Amino acid sequence: MGKICVLRLGHRPKRDRRITTHVFLAARALGADEGVLCGEKDESVIAGIRKVCALWGGGFQIKYEEDWAGFVASRKKAGWVVAHLTMYGEDFEKPVKAFSKKNVLVVVGAGKVPREAYALADFNLAVANQPHSEVSALALFLDRARGGKGFGKDMKGKLRIVPNKCGKLVVRGENE
Amino acid sequence: MGKICVLRLGHRPKRDRRITTHVFLAARALGADEGVLCGEKDESVIAGIRKVCALWGGGFQIKYEEDWAGFVASRKKAGWVVAHLTMYGEDFEKPVKAFSKKNVLVVVGAGKVPREAYALADFNLAVANQPHSEVSALALFLDRARGGKGFGKDMKGKLRIVPNKCGKLVVRGENE
Repeated sequence: MGKICVLRLGHRPKRDRRITTHVFLAARALGADEGVLCGEKDESVIAGIRKVCALWGGGFQIKYEEDWAGFVASRKKAGWVVAHLTMYGEDFEKPVKAFSKKNVLVVVGAGKVPREAYALADFNLAVANQPHSEVSALALFLDRARGGKGFGKDMKGKLRIVPNKCGKLVVRGENE
Repeated sequence: MGKICVLRLGHRPKRDRRITTHVFLAARALGADEGVLCGEKDESVIAGIRKVCALWGGGFQIKYEEDWAGFVASRKKAGWVVAHLTMYGEDFEKPVKAFSKKNVLVVVGAGKVPREAYALADFNLAVANQPHSEVSALALFLDRARGGKGFGKDMKGKLRIVPNKCGKLVVRGENE
């Protein structure tokens, strides 16, 4: 199974902070290995995700990258498949099945995505050719890329939830 | 196959408008039939979703409901299964498989969910016992509830996307 990196393109702190945070939280929880924030710099998103990682475990890494196109190009050079999620693209399921063993850079836009992103991507893929959310699109993409097994493993965090029929049970300390 | 209704609990317009909108857009695009907004009244969310439905088609219905607990109780009385999505719950996959032929009311919280919601639900279900997003959790829930076939049908909207390898192609007018 390859690595998966999620690149958030064109982040605007005021408008996108919460959705961008959800993008990276979903990435981490559903089987991605890495997140890259592009667009306007936003320390609070990066710090928030790092805090979640410190408490809840897993190996998810996140960083800011000013030159998104340079980053995409460098990953392509290193043999990664670049998949841009867009409602205008081809259906994602067949292509994802075909490349899911390779390393994949998933590009998820905020606001208007520059034409260059479509051109740089190996695949422009749609999860339903309908308007919904980059968070739901990413969730289904990761699910198919991980063969339905992207979540559910013990992430060995300081905090761990004990699944509960009717309430909340969080255990602390096992992995501290 | 049963009907699926998505209830957004505890909406706060200022803080939640964008995420709540994504919740309902994902609901519509991924196979739910109905959306119910609870919490503070917010005409702009309802109007936004209705506008998407008018342009992009499908039969998704949305409304505001002041008394969320009364609404949940009435659906239970009518034989619907009530599933509350929470990171603290039991794993969702087995239960969803078991009840996916029935009518299902999915409850998705914003902010702190009242204890009553846990008690009223037939199932408190987690999509990964990890923090992520109600949008990604709902996406995977709907996907499993619809057996992987919740999206991809022609919604017969005024606008329709022609899937495209590298660009945008939207057709207008076929269903006007």
